[in-house]
Amino acid sequence: MYRILIIGIGAGHPDHLTVQAVEALNRADVVFVPDKGAEKTALRQVRHDICARHVHRAGTRYVPYEIPRRAVLAEGYRAGVDDWHAQLAEGYEALFAAHLGAGEWGAFLVWGDPALYDSTLRIIERVRAKGSPVEIEVIPGISAVQSLAAQHRIALNGIGEPVLITTGRRLGADFPEADGSVVVMLDGEEAFAALDAPDCDIYWGAYLGTPDEILVSGPLGAVKDEILSLRRAARARHGWIMDTYLLRRPAQD
Amino acid sequence: MYRILIIGIGAGHPDHLTVQAVEALNRADVVFVPDKGAEKTALRQVRHDICARHVHRAGTRYVPYEIPRRAVLAEGYRAGVDDWHAQLAEGYEALFAAHLGAGEWGAFLVWGDPALYDSTLRIIERVRAKGSPVEIEVIPGISAVQSLAAQHRIALNGIGEPVLITTGRRLGADFPEADGSVVVMLDGEEAFAALDAPDCDIYWGAYLGTPDEILVSGPLGAVKDEILSLRRAARARHGWIMDTYLLRRPAQD
Ligand SMILES: C[S@@+](CC[C@H](N)C(=O)[O-])C[C@H]1O[C@@H](n2cnc3c(N)ncnc32)[C@H](O)[C@@H]1O
Ligand SMILES: C[S@@+](CC[C@H](N)C(=O)[O-])C[C@H]1O[C@@H](n2cnc3c(N)ncnc32)[C@H](O)[C@@H]1O
Repeated sequence: MYRILIIGIGAGHPDHLTVQAVEALNRADVVFVPDKGAEKTALRQVRHDICARHVHRAGTRYVPYEIPRRAVLAEGYRAGVDDWHAQLAEGYEALFAAHLGAGEWGAFLVWGDPALYDSTLRIIERVRAKGSPVEIEVIPGISAVQSLAAQHRIALNGIGEPVLITTGRRLGADFPEADGSVVVMLDGEEAFAALDAPDCDIYWGAYLGTPDEILVSGPLGAVKDEILSLRRAARARHGWIMDTYLLRRPAQD
Repeated sequence: MYRILIIGIGAGHPDHLTVQAVEALNRADVVFVPDKGAEKTALRQVRHDICARHVHRAGTRYVPYEIPRRAVLAEGYRAGVDDWHAQLAEGYEALFAAHLGAGEWGAFLVWGDPALYDSTLRIIERVRAKGSPVEIEVIPGISAVQSLAAQHRIALNGIGEPVLITTGRRLGADFPEADGSVVVMLDGEEAFAALDAPDCDIYWGAYLGTPDEILVSGPLGAVKDEILSLRRAARARHGWIMDTYLLRRPAQD
């Protein structure tokens, strides 16, 4: 029986770690760490700082693991992800067999909340489905969505209204006709710029919770160009970008 | 200038407090506490435990405040909420004037995440709009939605799919035709029972994060009656209930 902790660590701000996550971190005998190549230096630094500051027990083993490069997905988004997850599940199984002694806990430190656009849970579910008995404990974490709302000092929802969380790829199709707020993650294509909704308010945030944080808000029509140029300049400077935004029609009254 | 901390404290599990929230709690000179009548004993207990365990500084003042009863809203949901918020804003303003000295920080401890179906931010925005200068700092917290997903060990989203967070009142209208997950909060009317979607999976949780937590999952058609009877029995026993659930069509392949 493998015992695995899936610990949400927040999306950039090291103090977004919960008391429960600190406790779980100190229960882990082994912490699995994504291999250098796979992770941005800045993200690696946050993980490192969190462990350095909050792991108090002795003898924690840090085990690096490789994330196979995701094949470029020509067609069939789900099918491509499926193969990739299958590969990852094999890797995880080997990792557990090689590094977890009887009764020991292994831990994955997941960016943000493990429940939002993260594959760790699904992959471990697959390891289990292949026949390896795995006991899983999930520790929720503050997601980029919450960091965005807190930094802009806004509610995610309008009064009594729904909130849709979606991806850049889906924004065009998912943008609501009427009321409601939309939060967009995983948008490499600047999907907000293609929306025809100039009066809609946008609350945009990049590198949230980090010293490089950028925030812009205003009517989409008025701030779109500013966001586009800030976004491109920052991406060029850092070599990568993480951004999230909320869109909402202004209240009608 | 009033300085106000709006601190998310998680939705029932005291260890869902973040390191940032602990730090903010210890910066507060005054903690505003909802008056006895307004809050369930269990919720009051969680707030109390959090302060008892995590406030290390001396001299924090705890100031109770009354929440005016929300008038029964016959018609015009938004309008009713508007009046209620206006009343609350007056109360807050008086509270700040009476209890916050120059340069002092006041704090509100908000259930779950302040960004999700909570009015504290909006009310303080109103105090500001009335002319009182207020500096606001928002500390995100783990919401009931995240607690639900963690306890069921599931992702909120299907692969590449959106997640809609809505209320019981809106579920009938907002339930997606095609793919996507729906999370329902604030459902006093057991709206899931009226859905015609027996094959849809439901992941239901009540009193999440507390010793009274109840979890049920399965195809809606198969577990609906079990949830209804557990829900009614628990509500009768406790005198109140807090529950949240996720609905998702099973993956097509
Ligand atoms: C693979 S998803 C993981 C989300 C994560 N599990 C969470 O709960 O925040 C990555 C996306 O999250 C968002 N994101 C994560 N960290 C962020 C940050 N610090 N600032 C802005 N966006 C962030 C971006 O939209 C990015 O494309
Ligand atoms: C006014 S909303 C506040 C939500 C809160 N701000 C959050 O982020 O979780 C109250 C609703 O949250 C959900 N909720 C809050 N705490 C809960 C808990 N411990 N277990 C289940 N549901 C909870 C219920 O749907 C309840 O009707």
